[in-house]
Amino acid sequence: MIYALPVTRSGRSAIVQPPPYLYAVDYIAVYVSIDPEPARELLPPGLELASNKAWLYVSEFLSYPENNDEMAYLDPELTIYREGAVALNVALDGQSYLYFPFMWVDKDWALIRGYINGYPKKLAHISLSKLHPLMPGRGQLAPGLKLGGYVARNGYALFRLQVELMEKADGVPISAFGPTLTFRRYPATGAGEADVWEYVTVVKGESKITDVWKGRGSVEIGWGPNDEVNLIQIKEVIGGYYYRSFFKILSTKLIKKIQSK
Amino acid sequence: MIYALPVTRSGRSAIVQPPPYLYAVDYIAVYVSIDPEPARELLPPGLELASNKAWLYVSEFLSYPENNDEMAYLDPELTIYREGAVALNVALDGQSYLYFPFMWVDKDWALIRGYINGYPKKLAHISLSKLHPLMPGRGQLAPGLKLGGYVARNGYALFRLQVELMEKADGVPISAFGPTLTFRRYPATGAGEADVWEYVTVVKGESKITDVWKGRGSVEIGWGPNDEVNLIQIKEVIGGYYYRSFFKILSTKLIKKIQSK
Amino acid sequence: MIYALPVTRSGRSAIVQPPPYLYAVDYIAVYVSIDPEPARELLPPGLELASNKAWLYVSEFLSYPENNDEMAYLDPELTIYREGAVALNVALDGQSYLYFPFMWVDKDWALIRGYINGYPKKLAHISLSKLHPLMPGRGQLAPGLKLGGYVARNGYALFRLQVELMEKADGVPISAFGPTLTFRRYPATGAGEADVWEYVTVVKGESKITDVWKGRGSVEIGWGPNDEVNLIQIKEVIGGYYYRSFFKILSTKLIKKIQSK
Amino acid sequence: MIYALPVTRSGRSAIVQPPPYLYAVDYIAVYVSIDPEPARELLPPGLELASNKAWLYVSEFLSYPENNDEMAYLDPELTIYREGAVALNVALDGQSYLYFPFMWVDKDWALIRGYINGYPKKLAHISLSKLHPLMPGRGQLAPGLKLGGYVARNGYALFRLQVELMEKADGVPISAFGPTLTFRRYPATGAGEADVWEYVTVVKGESKITDVWKGRGSVEIGWGPNDEVNLIQIKEVIGGYYYRSFFKILSTKLIKKIQSK
Repeated sequence: MIYALPVTRSGRSAIVQPPPYLYAVDYIAVYVSIDPEPARELLPPGLELASNKAWLYVSEFLSYPENNDEMAYLDPELTIYREGAVALNVALDGQSYLYFPFMWVDKDWALIRGYINGYPKKLAHISLSKLHPLMPGRGQLAPGLKLGGYVARNGYALFRLQVELMEKADGVPISAFGPTLTFRRYPATGAGEADVWEYVTVVKGESKITDVWKGRGSVEIGWGPNDEVNLIQIKEVIGGYYYRSFFKILSTKLIKKIQSK
Repeated sequence: MIYALPVTRSGRSAIVQPPPYLYAVDYIAVYVSIDPEPARELLPPGLELASNKAWLYVSEFLSYPENNDEMAYLDPELTIYREGAVALNVALDGQSYLYFPFMWVDKDWALIRGYINGYPKKLAHISLSKLHPLMPGRGQLAPGLKLGGYVARNGYALFRLQVELMEKADGVPISAFGPTLTFRRYPATGAGEADVWEYVTVVKGESKITDVWKGRGSVEIGWGPNDEVNLIQIKEVIGGYYYRSFFKILSTKLIKKIQSK
Repeated sequence: MIYALPVTRSGRSAIVQPPPYLYAVDYIAVYVSIDPEPARELLPPGLELASNKAWLYVSEFLSYPENNDEMAYLDPELTIYREGAVALNVALDGQSYLYFPFMWVDKDWALIRGYINGYPKKLAHISLSKLHPLMPGRGQLAPGLKLGGYVARNGYALFRLQVELMEKADGVPISAFGPTLTFRRYPATGAGEADVWEYVTVVKGESKITDVWKGRGSVEIGWGPNDEVNLIQIKEVIGGYYYRSFFKILSTKLIKKIQSK
Repeated sequence: MIYALPVTRSGRSAIVQPPPYLYAVDYIAVYVSIDPEPARELLPPGLELASNKAWLYVSEFLSYPENNDEMAYLDPELTIYREGAVALNVALDGQSYLYFPFMWVDKDWALIRGYINGYPKKLAHISLSKLHPLMPGRGQLAPGLKLGGYVARNGYALFRLQVELMEKADGVPISAFGPTLTFRRYPATGAGEADVWEYVTVVKGESKITDVWKGRGSVEIGWGPNDEVNLIQIKEVIGGYYYRSFFKILSTKLIKKIQSK
């Protein structure tokens, strides 16, 4: 089965293998309220804001297709990536969803894999605090621990965040946003060609979240000429979060096709 | 018009703007004959080899949408990229084409722009000799000038080439391969979703080629666990080339849709 | 002769070869006046400001040891680098000099080569407009042409500049600053070890400058937690410049040793 | 105190702060025997091989000056780096040492910090397997776990290694090599300037090693025109190792000065 280019008989050169995919992730995040007015400029046709809450994070992933971790030792770069993103709480046809107007990663396969699943990925330089079990003061999650990170693309800082942990928590507030809605888009480039516009939700298999801590957060929003992240205007930082997560992505579920143009 | 993600009202955050696109390029290339047997493993359904000739190059591009060079001074990285590729001479339904089984670039927008147009792009580290008008011995194309470059992806060297210029030439041999055939592929990720498989040819507007030199060439083919470039097995290096090119890409022309699976 | 680490019998693995070095460069620069008060915090012991003028640039270099351009085709990355810098006009013992409080490059060998010659180099992401002879409107220097670039380090934008060319010029104003003064610094890390503090001037062989254009300029100064470039506070942008330069660096000339601590 | 360039009054812009430094590290390594003949070409004056054993590793570090972890949340990239290296067992004046003929890192501050301490650092692209506590089969060290990594510089793969864990171990064999001997080298660039050639040993404060596992190993040695790592010719891979380490570097101890040239 030819899932993605490049094509070879073995399928081993494709930039992305077919799902299911496994994800094990560390997140540093801030939960904020935003000015809804500029944020509406981030919504594709049919979407509305369901609340004025938003979520920004930086993260590091270990990820590969289920039953195939071979690249984890042959070429670890094909199994590790960093990601930063902005999530909004939107509504489509009366249903509440989590929607990503922006998402940046640092690997080509994560970019294309995401693009096929409807995520608006670009490449950026993403950084986040590292913990190590042997480093005094940075080996364990604990009250007072300061963590931070950022997303920068080319010569422009897009956002930087910091979190100071205060206490363990049971979960993260974005669970209330609803399922993840994405927008598959593959434009026609000539007459008679497919022109894909599809709202889909991401179908997860098992999923868990551990080591959740909350505390104080801060975030600084930047801008780039090709990255209008300044349409996210923070009113208040409600909290800062750290957590680890494991999930499996199986497929997507079609919600709505949009007629071309 | 929403051409590509991310979506914003202004359209200014999209990773790719709609065509037409302008391209001004410097190429260092080798023209080779290859063993047809392993090379057949690189062909998607319906394609055959039309000859045992192939072409490998490294190159640097200045490129942006026509009538919009603003990023050339706001963020030059959104207008400059390097590319390395392998081109084969294939036949589809009796017609001869130039087909790229592999192509690597070093920018996200070049990757997605290419993917939409059916090019099998990945990211890699690409390098090629630089000329400068003030550098003694490297300011002008001249007999005896040695040029080189390579493509490496993660921890694997994919190919390295060298060219020693001998004399001016009128053109490059790949013109004989025919128009560029690409393969638009955007897989369904769930039931009822579009599953795009389309052979298209790239429609160029004006196009010119200047400063063509030929000479001796050499090339060393590598391998990667996700990049089976070793299926290109060189029998003979016929020549080495340097040239500059300008062209405009307007759209693509649908040649054939393939029924899904 | 062991000039730099790593050591091998052949000397071919050293990160830097001995001088003389050749440099062929394209520069985009702005000439500015600055607030002298914060800028004084950038001066090492004994230096004073000689004027309130400063110069910021982004540039791309082709550079290698004289009589040895082999790497230009074996590994072009060992002969190409980009550089961004801030230059001040300082005085030491009554003599006027050009002094770089900050300089960023994008290659390890340019970093160490510079460090040995007393330049305060770090690595950064540097970008600048590219010209190409075949690109309409970006093939020739001409009135109205807009050029730009930036320096960003990790998640922080350090400066961005733009220039709009107006007319040809005879030279660049930094010639009036005097010779380039650098500060060789290699600290002792234990008792009895050498602790180098030396002011030197860079000794150039032949040097020329061509294609000088001036026009309007603009610059935006950023900041980083490890890059206090915000100590450069612009009062006025006097002009913007583009030029090409060739020069040879032969050695340095000792001006003054400083007693350790 | 001005420890390193760039100089500012606050000291906050220096590429490296003074020691002591903290290091918390994950290592993947292979223990090998080598052909002594070519390896001798890697030894600076006065060194001899003390055995035909060598050690190659890839690793990831969390590291910063003691009592100053601020960058861990302001700019995590100033506290995280990857390193790959080759270690030999040498003798100087009858004393056995661990000596690094080659060491590559991926951050400028790690490069200069190392260079000041006598390590022959260059920049390279370094990758190693990542573990994550929530990833099935890659959350825990266990028999059968496969790990790997590599060092590549520009277009050349320098080495790749793989380890398959078999059992816990008490320590790593390089402890028997002796203390770490490095070679501080800062060449004069003009008459009367300091010309530093000093053998020193690295002085560690507390140091510990945990989670040591050993098993099967394999390694593939490459080559680069500026990286003669092919002088390491493997006779046998004795074992593969994974371990974590914490140590503090306080200073260096002068062993021997070499008369210039």
